[in-house]
Amino acid sequence: MKADLIATRQALIEGKTHPLATAQACLDVAQSSACQHAFLQITPESLKKTATQPAVTGQVLAGLAVSVKDLFDIEGQVTAAGSVVLQNQQPARQDAPAIARLRAAGAGFIGRTNMVEFAFSGVGINPHHGTPAAWDALTDRPVGEAQAPRIPGGSSSGAAVSVATGAAFIGLGSDTGGSIRIPAALNGIVGFKNTARLVPTQGAIPLSTTLDTVCAMTRTVRDTVLAHEILSGRKVPKAHKPLSSYRLAIVQSLMQDSMDSVVSRAFERSLVALRAAGAQIQEIPLRELLDIVPMMATGGFSPAESFAWHRDWLGKDADQYDPRVAQRIQRGAQMAAHEYIHLQSARANWITRVEAALQGYDAILSPTLPIVGPCLSDVAPGPERDAEFFRVNALLLRNPSTINTLDGCAISLPCHAPGELPVGLMAWHTAMHDDTILQLAALLEPVLQRH
Amino acid sequence: MKADLIATRQALIEGKTHPLATAQACLDVAQSSACQHAFLQITPESLKKTATQPAVTGQVLAGLAVSVKDLFDIEGQVTAAGSVVLQNQQPARQDAPAIARLRAAGAGFIGRTNMVEFAFSGVGINPHHGTPAAWDALTDRPVGEAQAPRIPGGSSSGAAVSVATGAAFIGLGSDTGGSIRIPAALNGIVGFKNTARLVPTQGAIPLSTTLDTVCAMTRTVRDTVLAHEILSGRKVPKAHKPLSSYRLAIVQSLMQDSMDSVVSRAFERSLVALRAAGAQIQEIPLRELLDIVPMMATGGFSPAESFAWHRDWLGKDADQYDPRVAQRIQRGAQMAAHEYIHLQSARANWITRVEAALQGYDAILSPTLPIVGPCLSDVAPGPERDAEFFRVNALLLRNPSTINTLDGCAISLPCHAPGELPVGLMAWHTAMHDDTILQLAALLEPVLQRH
Repeated sequence: MKADLIATRQALIEGKTHPLATAQACLDVAQSSACQHAFLQITPESLKKTATQPAVTGQVLAGLAVSVKDLFDIEGQVTAAGSVVLQNQQPARQDAPAIARLRAAGAGFIGRTNMVEFAFSGVGINPHHGTPAAWDALTDRPVGEAQAPRIPGGSSSGAAVSVATGAAFIGLGSDTGGSIRIPAALNGIVGFKNTARLVPTQGAIPLSTTLDTVCAMTRTVRDTVLAHEILSGRKVPKAHKPLSSYRLAIVQSLMQDSMDSVVSRAFERSLVALRAAGAQIQEIPLRELLDIVPMMATGGFSPAESFAWHRDWLGKDADQYDPRVAQRIQRGAQMAAHEYIHLQSARANWITRVEAALQGYDAILSPTLPIVGPCLSDVAPGPERDAEFFRVNALLLRNPSTINTLDGCAISLPCHAPGELPVGLMAWHTAMHDDTILQLAALLEPVLQRH
Repeated sequence: MKADLIATRQALIEGKTHPLATAQACLDVAQSSACQHAFLQITPESLKKTATQPAVTGQVLAGLAVSVKDLFDIEGQVTAAGSVVLQNQQPARQDAPAIARLRAAGAGFIGRTNMVEFAFSGVGINPHHGTPAAWDALTDRPVGEAQAPRIPGGSSSGAAVSVATGAAFIGLGSDTGGSIRIPAALNGIVGFKNTARLVPTQGAIPLSTTLDTVCAMTRTVRDTVLAHEILSGRKVPKAHKPLSSYRLAIVQSLMQDSMDSVVSRAFERSLVALRAAGAQIQEIPLRELLDIVPMMATGGFSPAESFAWHRDWLGKDADQYDPRVAQRIQRGAQMAAHEYIHLQSARANWITRVEAALQGYDAILSPTLPIVGPCLSDVAPGPERDAEFFRVNALLLRNPSTINTLDGCAISLPCHAPGELPVGLMAWHTAMHDDTILQLAALLEPVLQRH
C-alpha cells in the first residue's frame, strides 16, 4: 500500500520529500492508466498552488492531494454529478461547506472524480464518462485479472480509485445507501459513513435529503479520523482501552445472508483473527433488521426525494439521463405524500427499536457487502444486462443502506488477504456512536491486515 | 376581568383565599351555562386533590385550575380529539410531556375541553358535542347579543371559553394554523404560539407534524409567560427596556387585507395609542409574505400529514367524522410525495428570505384576524352553510397560519374596548424570537387596555 496522509505529512515535515514532489507523484498516478475514467477533470494548478506552502505552517493537509466527487460545489467549477444534463450549467459561485473546510485545512484539490450519474446506484457504472476499473490498494494492483476488470463500486467510483491508486490521500464523496462504503470495500481502502448530521450537506446535489451523508475514503483508519475531524469540525477523542473491552456482536438477521464464498471466507477468518486478538464477539438475532424490507416496500426515500429535485430536468431532458438512473428517479413520481410521511414516521419508530436492541453493544461487525465486485462486462450499459445490473445493485446496497436508514454510522475496513478479491468488514452502530466506531476501527485494522 | 393566575396565587399565599375555595369557584363556572359545551369532561376530584396542598410548597401552579384540550394524553383518560371515532379507545397509559410538566408544577386539571374535531379548522364548531359560545373576558359577559351567540374560534374552542369565563387559569391547547390565537382573539384573552420546537408535541394527536405547536391561553401576559416557562422548561428573562426601544413594524402585504370595520378601527386605534406611548412603528412592504399563496397551492402540510395518520380510520369509519373535516383530510390522499418534499424545501427557502427581510425588527404588529367572529347560526353544521363556513375559516386562518408556516412565534392580545366585539392584535416574528415577543407583550398589554 502507498504511504498514507499522516506518514506523508511526517516525511514533509522531516524534509524527506518536498510538497511539490508529492503533488507531482499524485498527478502522475492520476494521469496514468490506473486512473482511467477515475477523474472527470484534473486540476494540476490548483493542487500545485497549495503544495508550494511549507508543511510546517500548521495546515494539517499541507497541500496534499484530495479528490472531490463531481457532486460538490467548488467555486468556479461546474457541478454536474456525473451527468451530461448539468454539464453546461453555470460554475458554482461558492464552495460547499465541506469543500471550504478542506480548503481551510490546506487541501490540494487534484480534481473532480467520476461517479454514478446523480449517485443513483452502488455498482459504479457511468455510461457517459466511462467506468474506472477497481484497484486494490493493499497490493497496489488492479483488482482481479487485467483482462477482466472489476466494477469499482459506486456511486463514489472515481473517488475510491483515486485513493486506492494513490492519486489522492482523501477522496471526498457522499454515502446515501453505501456510496462510500461499497467502493471502499471493492478497492481495499477505508470508507467511513459518519452520522449524517455531523457534516453539512449543502452545496452537494441531493439524492435523498433524508439519507445523504457527506464523508470520505482514505487508505488508513488514522487518515479517516483526520478527514472526519476536518469535515465535521470537531475532534475525535483518543481511546486508551484494549480491543477486549469492546462489546461486539454479529447479527443473525439480514447482514450475513447470501454471502459468496470469497466474502464468507474472509469474514469468518476475520472473526477468528479478532477473537484470537482478544475481541469479545457475541452472536445476536437483531430480528428488527428484517422489518426494513416491508418498511421500504413503497420504494424508500431516494426516488421521491430525487424526483422532487429532478422533475423539471426530466420533463425536458430525460433522454440525456442514464436510462438505469432515469427509470428509478421516475418511479419517485408515483409515491403519495401520505406514503412518504408514513415512511418517515415508520423509520423513526424503527430506529428507536433498533437503538433499544443495541444498547448493550459498542459495535456490530458485518460484511460490508455479501459479494465481491463482478466483472465490468457483466453489468456494462445495455438493456440485455439490466436484470443482472439491478440484481447486483440490490445486493451491494443491502447492508450499507440499512445503516443509512438507521441514521447510523459505519466504517468499512479491508479484510481480504493479498491476492484475494477485495472484501470489506463493516463495524457499525446507530446515530452518534461515531467516536466509538473510529476508536474501535483503529484496533481492528492491524488485526484484519495481519494475514 | 377575573383575577389571573399570578394574582390568585398571591391571594392564596397571603391567606386571603383557600385553594379549595378557588377550585370550587372554578368548578362553579365550568358547570354554569357560560361554559355550555366548553368541556367534554369535568374532573372535580382531580382538581380538588391538587387544591388541598398548601400554595406555599413552591409548586408554582398551586392546585390552580388548568383545562386540557381533548387532544392531549392524560394518564387514565381517553384522548378523542373532539371526535366520536376515537371515543371508545383505550385510556392513555401515560401523560403527554406537556401534561407531565404542568402536573409537576402543581396544576389542577379541571377537565378536558371541547375542540374542533381533530383540530381541523379555525371556526370552532363541533357537530358531535355542540359548540361553546364566545365569551369576552374583558367584560366577563357573552360576546355580542345573547340571542345571537358568536363562534368561539378554534380549534381550541373550549379551552378559550374555559379561560375567558374563569373556569381555568390556563387553557392548554395546540396551534397548527392559529388554533390558540384565533379563539384567544375571539374571547378577549391572551394566546401565545411559541416557536414549535420549544415544547414537546408527543402525546397529542397530530394535525400537521410539520406545524403543530403545543401552547396555551391565559387571561394576562404575565400568566402566559408563566405557562410558557412551565411548558418549555426554561426561563424567560426579564427585560428592562422601554417600549420606545423596540423596533416595531406593520406590514403592507397580506396581514391587513380585508379587515372589517370593527377590526380596522380597533387596530388603528391601537397603533395610535402605542405611538402615543412612545412606540416606534415603521411601515414595511414585506412582499415576501405574498409568496405564501402560490407556495401553498398544492394544499399545504396538514391534509397529507393528517391523511397519513387517519387513513386507516377513514377507511372504515369515515361516516363518523364531521363531514367538513373528513373532506379536508381526504384531500391529503391526492398529494404526491414529490409535491410534499418540494413544499418542505420551498418553505425552508421562504423562511430564510423572510428572516432576512425582518432582521432589523424586533416584532411585527398585525391584526390577529381580519374579521370579528360571525354568529354561530351563520356557520352552524349543515351543507347549506358550508360555503360561508369555508369562507370564514379561510379568513380566520390567514394571518395566524402564516406564522406557523414561518416556523415563527406570535402572541395575540385583546385590543378592543369594552362593549365592542373582541379583536386581537398579534405581535410576531420568526423562529426563536419568543423571549422578545413575550417581553414586548408585557409592555403592549397595558397600553392596549387603556381605553
